[in-house]
Amino acid sequence: MYNKANHYIYKKGGSLMTKYIPDCYWPEQDNGAYVSHESICALNTSASPATVRLTFYFEDRPKMEGFCVTIPAERTLHIRLDKLKNANGEALLRGIPYAAMIESDVELALQYTRLDATQPELALMTTML
Amino acid sequence: MYNKANHYIYKKGGSLMTKYIPDCYWPEQDNGAYVSHESICALNTSASPATVRLTFYFEDRPKMEGFCVTIPAERTLHIRLDKLKNANGEALLRGIPYAAMIESDVELALQYTRLDATQPELALMTTML
Amino acid sequence: MYNKANHYIYKKGGSLMTKYIPDCYWPEQDNGAYVSHESICALNTSASPATVRLTFYFEDRPKMEGFCVTIPAERTLHIRLDKLKNANGEALLRGIPYAAMIESDVELALQYTRLDATQPELALMTTML
Amino acid sequence: MYNKANHYIYKKGGSLMTKYIPDCYWPEQDNGAYVSHESICALNTSASPATVRLTFYFEDRPKMEGFCVTIPAERTLHIRLDKLKNANGEALLRGIPYAAMIESDVELALQYTRLDATQPELALMTTML
Repeated sequence: MYNKANHYIYKKGGSLMTKYIPDCYWPEQDNGAYVSHESICALNTSASPATVRLTFYFEDRPKMEGFCVTIPAERTLHIRLDKLKNANGEALLRGIPYAAMIESDVELALQYTRLDATQPELALMTTML
Repeated sequence: MYNKANHYIYKKGGSLMTKYIPDCYWPEQDNGAYVSHESICALNTSASPATVRLTFYFEDRPKMEGFCVTIPAERTLHIRLDKLKNANGEALLRGIPYAAMIESDVELALQYTRLDATQPELALMTTML
Repeated sequence: MYNKANHYIYKKGGSLMTKYIPDCYWPEQDNGAYVSHESICALNTSASPATVRLTFYFEDRPKMEGFCVTIPAERTLHIRLDKLKNANGEALLRGIPYAAMIESDVELALQYTRLDATQPELALMTTML
Repeated sequence: MYNKANHYIYKKGGSLMTKYIPDCYWPEQDNGAYVSHESICALNTSASPATVRLTFYFEDRPKMEGFCVTIPAERTLHIRLDKLKNANGEALLRGIPYAAMIESDVELALQYTRLDATQPELALMTTML
């Protein structure tokens, strides 16, 4: 999902909108019908593709940057955080509290959802950003 | 729920309010006391009926249009997305990520809820739009 | 919780704030450690008591009125909808979709939560109003 | 987490932002893979540390004050309410309805999450503040 060309254009132009998710957590276990995961879901109803940059913050270490995603015009993208990698190939860690900042050069609707499958019966939570 | 007369009036007049649900997903299985489903719940406290148009966006295909619902004055409607059909008789698909845009010609309060009954014990999530 | 004196004062003065919950539903069964219930949780941080009026809307019948609650100064109240009665002694019904309007003469913070204990393992959902 | 120096600075300067959580509840039992708990999750993306003051409100007794937490610059903190103590060493009580007010001298993103492990299979709920 990382697009080198867009990434550089993005850095020049700056972001139109910024949203935050203070409560991110990727549960350590997968014992249900689903795997435990978090999604940042974006909807781009505009006629232009959106370049989205994600930054992750932690309790005890510096922020991680360089995560970049493109959402085509008139499409949704449910960004699976368990599958996301940045420009350096780094992924997120399981079992530690973290938080996210989402920046986009096009106005998006954004929602965060977590599915916890630590135990056989899943739990769900969601919130609009 | 599709009202051809209202539909044409609506298209002429445009919409007063627009809201979005980036994280829609209709789970593929029903193994609980309930069936898996999503609801867009609308409350119309005004003295006029509301004509509501729904558009659905996907990750890998063009948007689906032509879903239209009327909410009478001083009534609520919990729109079951698993039962919704558009003017062409098309329904939504199970097991794929999608998103929704809701337009109304009357100011409404709107909330999205998902009940996942993939496993015997249900999970719930909700958010205000 | 109904206070006849406050109720009349309220009707004269009108409301300062109005909030809505489109997705109310009182599950029909109680099979868990808790009973199935919904709460409208209010926080009054002001120095004055708040008089709160609740109106409920349905899909197929007229709205129900006359539900009135007082929140003392610097107190919270988690209004259990399964225990609420109006001035005529009427309570809400289980197993049907409905919606709520909350009016207050003092600015409040408000949140809606549902606990579904239809099955042995509970499910929870919440949203800020 | 209580910092005496910051606490006094805070009281002099007042707060920049105030947010509320009307529906707080610490379930009385822990029967799952997790322990039952609530978190107030804060994200401080600024270059300055944030001094956060928490006040808790109840249905039947005066508010509790003197809870103070510092969030370093460019860090998140998932404040576990089951582990929080105020300047007098007081902790919150299990099994009673309460509410929270959060004040900060730096603009923060805030989210509230509850994990209920009263029964073997957990339930989750979250909302943005």
